[in-house]
Amino acid sequence: MTKTLNVGMVGYGFMARAHSNAWVKAPHFFDTGYKPVLKAVAARNTGKATAFAQQWGYEAVESDWRRLVERPDIDAIDICVPNDLHAEIAIAAAKAGKMVLCEKPLARTEAEALPMVEAVEAAGVPNMVWYNYRRVPAVTLVKRMIDQGLLGHIYHYRAKFLQDWTISPDVPQGGAATWRLDVEAAGSGVTGDLLAHCLDTAIWLNGSIASLTAMTETFVKERKDAVTGAMRPVGIDDASAVLTRFANGSLGTFESTRYARGHKAAYTLEINGENGSLAWDLHDLNRVSWFDHRTPGQLRGWTSILVTDGEHPYLGKWWVPGLIIGYEHSFVHQVADFLDGLASGKPAAPTFRDALETTRVCDAIIASGKSGAWVDLGAAG
Amino acid sequence: MTKTLNVGMVGYGFMARAHSNAWVKAPHFFDTGYKPVLKAVAARNTGKATAFAQQWGYEAVESDWRRLVERPDIDAIDICVPNDLHAEIAIAAAKAGKMVLCEKPLARTEAEALPMVEAVEAAGVPNMVWYNYRRVPAVTLVKRMIDQGLLGHIYHYRAKFLQDWTISPDVPQGGAATWRLDVEAAGSGVTGDLLAHCLDTAIWLNGSIASLTAMTETFVKERKDAVTGAMRPVGIDDASAVLTRFANGSLGTFESTRYARGHKAAYTLEINGENGSLAWDLHDLNRVSWFDHRTPGQLRGWTSILVTDGEHPYLGKWWVPGLIIGYEHSFVHQVADFLDGLASGKPAAPTFRDALETTRVCDAIIASGKSGAWVDLGAAG
Amino acid sequence: MTKTLNVGMVGYGFMARAHSNAWVKAPHFFDTGYKPVLKAVAARNTGKATAFAQQWGYEAVESDWRRLVERPDIDAIDICVPNDLHAEIAIAAAKAGKMVLCEKPLARTEAEALPMVEAVEAAGVPNMVWYNYRRVPAVTLVKRMIDQGLLGHIYHYRAKFLQDWTISPDVPQGGAATWRLDVEAAGSGVTGDLLAHCLDTAIWLNGSIASLTAMTETFVKERKDAVTGAMRPVGIDDASAVLTRFANGSLGTFESTRYARGHKAAYTLEINGENGSLAWDLHDLNRVSWFDHRTPGQLRGWTSILVTDGEHPYLGKWWVPGLIIGYEHSFVHQVADFLDGLASGKPAAPTFRDALETTRVCDAIIASGKSGAWVDLGAAG
Amino acid sequence: MTKTLNVGMVGYGFMARAHSNAWVKAPHFFDTGYKPVLKAVAARNTGKATAFAQQWGYEAVESDWRRLVERPDIDAIDICVPNDLHAEIAIAAAKAGKMVLCEKPLARTEAEALPMVEAVEAAGVPNMVWYNYRRVPAVTLVKRMIDQGLLGHIYHYRAKFLQDWTISPDVPQGGAATWRLDVEAAGSGVTGDLLAHCLDTAIWLNGSIASLTAMTETFVKERKDAVTGAMRPVGIDDASAVLTRFANGSLGTFESTRYARGHKAAYTLEINGENGSLAWDLHDLNRVSWFDHRTPGQLRGWTSILVTDGEHPYLGKWWVPGLIIGYEHSFVHQVADFLDGLASGKPAAPTFRDALETTRVCDAIIASGKSGAWVDLGAAG
Repeated sequence: MTKTLNVGMVGYGFMARAHSNAWVKAPHFFDTGYKPVLKAVAARNTGKATAFAQQWGYEAVESDWRRLVERPDIDAIDICVPNDLHAEIAIAAAKAGKMVLCEKPLARTEAEALPMVEAVEAAGVPNMVWYNYRRVPAVTLVKRMIDQGLLGHIYHYRAKFLQDWTISPDVPQGGAATWRLDVEAAGSGVTGDLLAHCLDTAIWLNGSIASLTAMTETFVKERKDAVTGAMRPVGIDDASAVLTRFANGSLGTFESTRYARGHKAAYTLEINGENGSLAWDLHDLNRVSWFDHRTPGQLRGWTSILVTDGEHPYLGKWWVPGLIIGYEHSFVHQVADFLDGLASGKPAAPTFRDALETTRVCDAIIASGKSGAWVDLGAAG
Repeated sequence: MTKTLNVGMVGYGFMARAHSNAWVKAPHFFDTGYKPVLKAVAARNTGKATAFAQQWGYEAVESDWRRLVERPDIDAIDICVPNDLHAEIAIAAAKAGKMVLCEKPLARTEAEALPMVEAVEAAGVPNMVWYNYRRVPAVTLVKRMIDQGLLGHIYHYRAKFLQDWTISPDVPQGGAATWRLDVEAAGSGVTGDLLAHCLDTAIWLNGSIASLTAMTETFVKERKDAVTGAMRPVGIDDASAVLTRFANGSLGTFESTRYARGHKAAYTLEINGENGSLAWDLHDLNRVSWFDHRTPGQLRGWTSILVTDGEHPYLGKWWVPGLIIGYEHSFVHQVADFLDGLASGKPAAPTFRDALETTRVCDAIIASGKSGAWVDLGAAG
Repeated sequence: MTKTLNVGMVGYGFMARAHSNAWVKAPHFFDTGYKPVLKAVAARNTGKATAFAQQWGYEAVESDWRRLVERPDIDAIDICVPNDLHAEIAIAAAKAGKMVLCEKPLARTEAEALPMVEAVEAAGVPNMVWYNYRRVPAVTLVKRMIDQGLLGHIYHYRAKFLQDWTISPDVPQGGAATWRLDVEAAGSGVTGDLLAHCLDTAIWLNGSIASLTAMTETFVKERKDAVTGAMRPVGIDDASAVLTRFANGSLGTFESTRYARGHKAAYTLEINGENGSLAWDLHDLNRVSWFDHRTPGQLRGWTSILVTDGEHPYLGKWWVPGLIIGYEHSFVHQVADFLDGLASGKPAAPTFRDALETTRVCDAIIASGKSGAWVDLGAAG
Repeated sequence: MTKTLNVGMVGYGFMARAHSNAWVKAPHFFDTGYKPVLKAVAARNTGKATAFAQQWGYEAVESDWRRLVERPDIDAIDICVPNDLHAEIAIAAAKAGKMVLCEKPLARTEAEALPMVEAVEAAGVPNMVWYNYRRVPAVTLVKRMIDQGLLGHIYHYRAKFLQDWTISPDVPQGGAATWRLDVEAAGSGVTGDLLAHCLDTAIWLNGSIASLTAMTETFVKERKDAVTGAMRPVGIDDASAVLTRFANGSLGTFESTRYARGHKAAYTLEINGENGSLAWDLHDLNRVSWFDHRTPGQLRGWTSILVTDGEHPYLGKWWVPGLIIGYEHSFVHQVADFLDGLASGKPAAPTFRDALETTRVCDAIIASGKSGAWVDLGAAG
């Protein structure tokens, strides 16, 4: 018997769209035990919220997220608003006994995030952070291959997330479209927005980061405020680069920037082990590059695995071999796994607790970028 | 004011799933003027049809497509059954005044397809054939670039559709899963199943084919019948290769096969013009390869355009630059364009009439494969 | 004890340069048993021949190839002149007891080539045709992998050789630089110049071609004569496309053109077998693409083998893994193998006899291009 | 009138082979004004030196490099021995008035290198360090494009040099084959061997490095001595990763390792500017990847320039468009440019003075790897 899961969405922007699509689509392709119902969307701008609700089939609109949280018919709150609003909403939702799903990063800082973790754990409510790239099938396959021991001892991990959309000094900061450039709303710049994805995947695939040193830079020092029109100093990091030592002894290099001309959403990762290496690229997200050192020398090389077969993660539910899927499917998989987790009682990762570690690393990067010193993260070596 | 469009689906297989997804998704992402409603699904196997209806939210199930066609509350009939059933259903639907959307190829032969064209035209009902690859954004961009005159005079067109799933002689023919190997159900083998896609795109991009010669082959001469278990001669073409002369004077080479180990759905095309060339590959469907001869020589090369920007076809409705979409989106775009066509009165292509030409070319390929002779298709040069 | 091999070169053009480089370099990298000595170069234009001799260290210049053939101190004649001169020189050289190395194609037609084969065989002199691409290490590796049985039963072979340098109607025909566009000098157009390479490799890798049908086209009907300046009809094929049946039952598709914008020397080949597939591209000549169906499904894909390791063909003699070689090395390898053949008494392929088959296929292509009919090549099926 | 340049080679190993090939080949392809003569090779192991001399045509063998330096008929000394021997030989050669060409890195440390610079400058002799990758045509094209202002303001530079040949702890250190693992002979590990190449190119393309912080690691702590067979601590860096700030304000990330499974000689670089980006990969060394932001948005993408046309650097001297060259050609170009520099009086870069900067940066990396602190290199910002 399929149960109903009533979803209350906070926000109507880009991420709310990606999540709504996932809530709708998951039961069409996966046997989930729960059927999500788009119950209500909350936003101060009720005009935009209403249009959004009509497009996606939400039954109602609330002008304040507090109303949503108070509604007894809502099972889960999905938080799709700027980072500075995550904590208050999540904590209130947990206290109201709602499941909480929060867009990443969990919060602007570890200090802000920790009470969120404590709130969901105190309330005992299912919770999850939308680090969606874990559920790109190719990335999930990378995880599976590592878990199968195909790489052996790990020596290197490297990841980058490159974009180019803020090179022009005319791009403003703040407001609905560019709050990611406003340090008040975002907490940090590319580190929390882009590198956090790389870090979440890295910790999932390769374990904890023990220590790091970082370089951060703000190329454009002042930008206009999108709301007031006034020039204001830019408080975010436009670029960050990091050297890390993982607890398992491997070395990591990380980089994120919005000033790498020609790159749109170029999240790439590579991991080098004793017996093999794996690489992945978000721009061609259906492929894993795999080097298997155990292959006889004459035939050895990098294999491009087109991750579209039934035996690949999640793919048995989609089309036929050779037919690719896209960005949005990672969210569909996250919903499917979340619903599975409800059914099985084994929560889908990353939970708030899991995601706290990434925020801690982000904090260390920003700190090291200022001090120039290595930061010890206290992870066991 | 958004109008309702009640859809009646015939079939519950792979294509019915792809189409249902498109009917559901189109209004979430496109402003279409019409809101499709999944009204009913028809199939003899009502158990499977019921499960399908539940998964996708169809309101009802009919055990016979004739009932569906008779229902006054159905606006459009969507035909997703084996090729040998297309004609009867489409003609009955047209006579009943329904819009008709038919999976490709239109029918097994031109002789079978022509009455379908006549029926929809006599009834004056909107009609469309699901040659979905025209609406992969990268392919649409290729069309746009050709229409903008970027290539100049055309010399060459080449396309292939390679698969490898029937190499084993243990794959049966006939039945629900492998009717594509049964010449009675399918009409032809790879020519109608795979090459028809290549031909539809080619005619759309490069105009009519004037003449051709073909080689066809059936590698596995006998296969077990999936229903009866008896060995039967194989009547389909396992592979076909074609040389063509287009009406515009350019030369074409085409190939399709299910015996090209390592290729899953490798539809590739390339067009060479005086001033530039364009290429595309279904396995990396978000990219166009573009060679611009007007670039200064030192900087000339093949440019890989990642078709994910707002100014690319359809992409303004999806995510942000760099975030890719997949196979299923081509169907969503086809629904969106079909609904736009209803609203504007300018029908979306390819109509039944448009698709008839591809079936005529397929017939010529099968004939030439037997005779070894060139076939004149009578297209004006 | 290393013996001396005195080389007499006929011609001073592009191919003479490639061959001279190979004669000089081979003993620096390979232990060959013979040390080539650049003895003399023959050409009517003694001014250009003298400059060429100085650049490469030839000891002498002859104004007539007959003198070179008559010189008792010359061991081997290397023919690097237009195709219409091959036969006379090769036959005279053979009669004079010289080894003969002839640039490809052997001659303009089979009728012209056959007496050359008979002459070298009657004289019992070592002989070879410079189909150099067999000795690109990656292509040699493809041959080795096929011989090792990695592909199993073969279904498909496809090859193309695409260029774009004659699109402009202002390119003349005839003369030293553009004799390849003059049917009198060249015998045919792209078929003998480009496709002959594809055919030689195909026959080497996949066995004889049993039958074929072809389409040929001359896009530019008239070109200026490079010598007289007068407009003359163009007699060559600008493009050719061919469907073949190999004696082993596999299907072949071949294409060559000089009107494929963006392609410089795009010789690509692919072969599909029951258990695997192989592909190669001259533009990236150090790589083999290899699909191994025996790999577990989850890890299957196309492997890009970077052919630079010591265990790869010829590579043990060059640099270290990862450091690539280029076009010219195929000629060096051919010299090394020719010299090895002298030492071992086991002649290096392709001999004149071997190369005759390719010329026969070229003739059939030109004939079929005119008749539109299939040509049976009489190879056992 | 071509002059003779008598070359005295010190060493007979891998680099001596690469250099000898370059000395021989340069005048065959370039009009250089000087004709190199392979006069003598010096090495303690006269047996191996004699075999080397015979293979390459050196006229004589010396058992001590001092004899070579003393010979009045030698014009230039080419140093191809382990790093710890560079200084003494170079200084003696300079004092003897010889031109000096030294394999990279110039010496083990800046302290050791500085007297070498002073010696050649005091003697006024032509001098050069073999940072050969500057003269891979694609890299030279990158330099030309930057100099033409195509990139605009630079934000990012990243380079890596990845290998995998020392992962096994059974690889020894010291001796003729593995002196690169012996800190006494090499000075450092991957930093001086691999990263030095990346740094030389980076400084050439993007200017001086102002400051840096580094992480270095020795994964295998003890290795057998190749000569004595005894286990000894490993003193080199197996991997190094570096964050830099360039004097022009751009950020750099660098990495080198011999523990990146699947990478043989994977030197890659990328530079991101305001108006465009450029990337290059040694494994496919004939290509430049180029993103031109000025292209209209719809057509924008990464262009793969196949650097084989006559208008590309050095390529007018080689084959025809589409036909690639390899690793060894970079040395040929360096010889050609060195000889041109002699003729023109404008010395070819990098001179000893130029190369000193790279060694200084290497020292800083090793120091920072130990201290964990940023190092200020004193370059003007």
